[in-house]
Amino acid sequence: MPAASLVGIMASTTAAFFDLVRSQLPAVETRMRTGAGNHHPNLDAAIEQILSSGGKRIRPTLTLLTGSMLGADPGRAITLAAAIEMLHTATLVHDDLIDGSVLRRGLPTLNARWSPGATVLTGDYVFARAAQLAAQTGSLPLMEIFARTLMTIVNGEITQLFHTHQDDTREDYFNRIYAKTASLFELSTEAAALLGGASQEVVAAMKDYGYHIGIAFQIVDDLLDFIGDQEQVGKPLASDLRQGIVTLPTLYYLQQNREDPDLALVLEGRVAEEPLRRLVESIRRSGAIERSLEEAREFASIGEANLAGMPDGLERTALYELARYVVERST
Amino acid sequence: MPAASLVGIMASTTAAFFDLVRSQLPAVETRMRTGAGNHHPNLDAAIEQILSSGGKRIRPTLTLLTGSMLGADPGRAITLAAAIEMLHTATLVHDDLIDGSVLRRGLPTLNARWSPGATVLTGDYVFARAAQLAAQTGSLPLMEIFARTLMTIVNGEITQLFHTHQDDTREDYFNRIYAKTASLFELSTEAAALLGGASQEVVAAMKDYGYHIGIAFQIVDDLLDFIGDQEQVGKPLASDLRQGIVTLPTLYYLQQNREDPDLALVLEGRVAEEPLRRLVESIRRSGAIERSLEEAREFASIGEANLAGMPDGLERTALYELARYVVERST
Repeated sequence: MPAASLVGIMASTTAAFFDLVRSQLPAVETRMRTGAGNHHPNLDAAIEQILSSGGKRIRPTLTLLTGSMLGADPGRAITLAAAIEMLHTATLVHDDLIDGSVLRRGLPTLNARWSPGATVLTGDYVFARAAQLAAQTGSLPLMEIFARTLMTIVNGEITQLFHTHQDDTREDYFNRIYAKTASLFELSTEAAALLGGASQEVVAAMKDYGYHIGIAFQIVDDLLDFIGDQEQVGKPLASDLRQGIVTLPTLYYLQQNREDPDLALVLEGRVAEEPLRRLVESIRRSGAIERSLEEAREFASIGEANLAGMPDGLERTALYELARYVVERST
Repeated sequence: MPAASLVGIMASTTAAFFDLVRSQLPAVETRMRTGAGNHHPNLDAAIEQILSSGGKRIRPTLTLLTGSMLGADPGRAITLAAAIEMLHTATLVHDDLIDGSVLRRGLPTLNARWSPGATVLTGDYVFARAAQLAAQTGSLPLMEIFARTLMTIVNGEITQLFHTHQDDTREDYFNRIYAKTASLFELSTEAAALLGGASQEVVAAMKDYGYHIGIAFQIVDDLLDFIGDQEQVGKPLASDLRQGIVTLPTLYYLQQNREDPDLALVLEGRVAEEPLRRLVESIRRSGAIERSLEEAREFASIGEANLAGMPDGLERTALYELARYVVERST
């Protein structure tokens, strides 16, 4: 299938599974915004800015669906969902600062408006708030995996910072997207299952579901960087390659085209517009994007298999849909 | 008493109370260094650098003494002490980055050697590790006050960032040193009392002890900035005034000498060496430093009073000594 037609297929997907949690997501938003005490008004404004730029809230959705499927207390599940989304938000604030990104989801980042110091501190505050929310779920094992996940994410970022991209391998890539994305997906489902008081086997199965869906989600994110609608994605096309970041489509392309001079130039960080445009075109035509999507589908389907043993009901159906949405979305 | 002779008195103090916890402090150091998983070698090196620059470990000492006095499990108290010192360390890493400080305790800061990005991430990792250690104490209420304390500290830093120093008041000052120092002292004693399973009254009393000792500690830190031995303190004399930061001695001086033109210059941030030197000299001669020390002693003595109802023993004696050390130390 040519890359161009993939966009059409992806765009036609609706996300019906969101319906089931639509009534609870506002409670998650409220929980994220509820301060625990007095703080500086500029901090309120900053937090409002980063929370209102939204995002899909896919992690809270995973948490709420898993929690509800496994009988977790709804209030605690909402608190957990808020904790996880705050953790995610805090890492994005520091990420954008470190990358010098001025846009995220098409909106100005915090560091585009604030000093580096204020941005660092706002991220720290959101970390603290995330930890407080996690503690308020009243589960100590959850607290521990929460902290461990943050360590995984940060270690992944540090590894990327010190990494030279020329020697990227599949192993590097999968380690990186685990740290960056799948670790938090797996936390969302594992922690929700823990809150539901599920057996060790069920907790492990839902963790595995989250892991595989998370990997699939990030692979699709990375291939959308090559084919997505620039406006919808909210960042310049091939933004990863521009930064010398090798993702799965480039790895597939590399296997067959190690001698492409444009690739060498881009990986060396000498990003002129013309070789970059040619390289993106070559990667699109090579079948690398279709192979990446195929691989994402395999991950999603391995993840889905964990649902077979879960309680039948609307939530399980929604989690099946979510696994499909992750690989069929266009933004 | 002239300011110069204060230094002599302070320097003569020994810190016998450290003896009681000397055997446990290495275990705290080990606990701080124990990673929970694999991480990037550069991160290990960075963490070793910031942990080996040491400091007095006064917060762990408070935690261990309080925990031991109130019957907390020694292993859990060591974990808590490590958690609190890691939290403290993480805030210092981000602080130094934001202030652009290149020295702390006379040693190079992390940001003096590393990129801002790597420094932000190392701080984040240490936060995560602190949260993990806090979770490993196995006390949920402790987790919550832990997260709340981090919010207090960060909010204090943000407030300082957006603050214009010209309108500093006693209230501003005490809010700032609460956020910066006393909040973590109070966490050290409150959380240790919680671990010991103490009654609400005892927990509140030990929290109050920590609060007052913390305020006294910071007042002394601030007055040592005017009179301390530059080499021992490990930073340039009057470093606060150089940054336009008003501390208690300056506030006392302000009350009587609002018209001093040197003061106006320094508070406007126009810090030439000569007016600064004159101002420091004027503050030293004005009695403001003695009055500040007197106030620190009052705080320490209010803090101490909470010990009257505590179990008699070596730990309580050590906590009395610690209260005195805090106001009599010279570094």
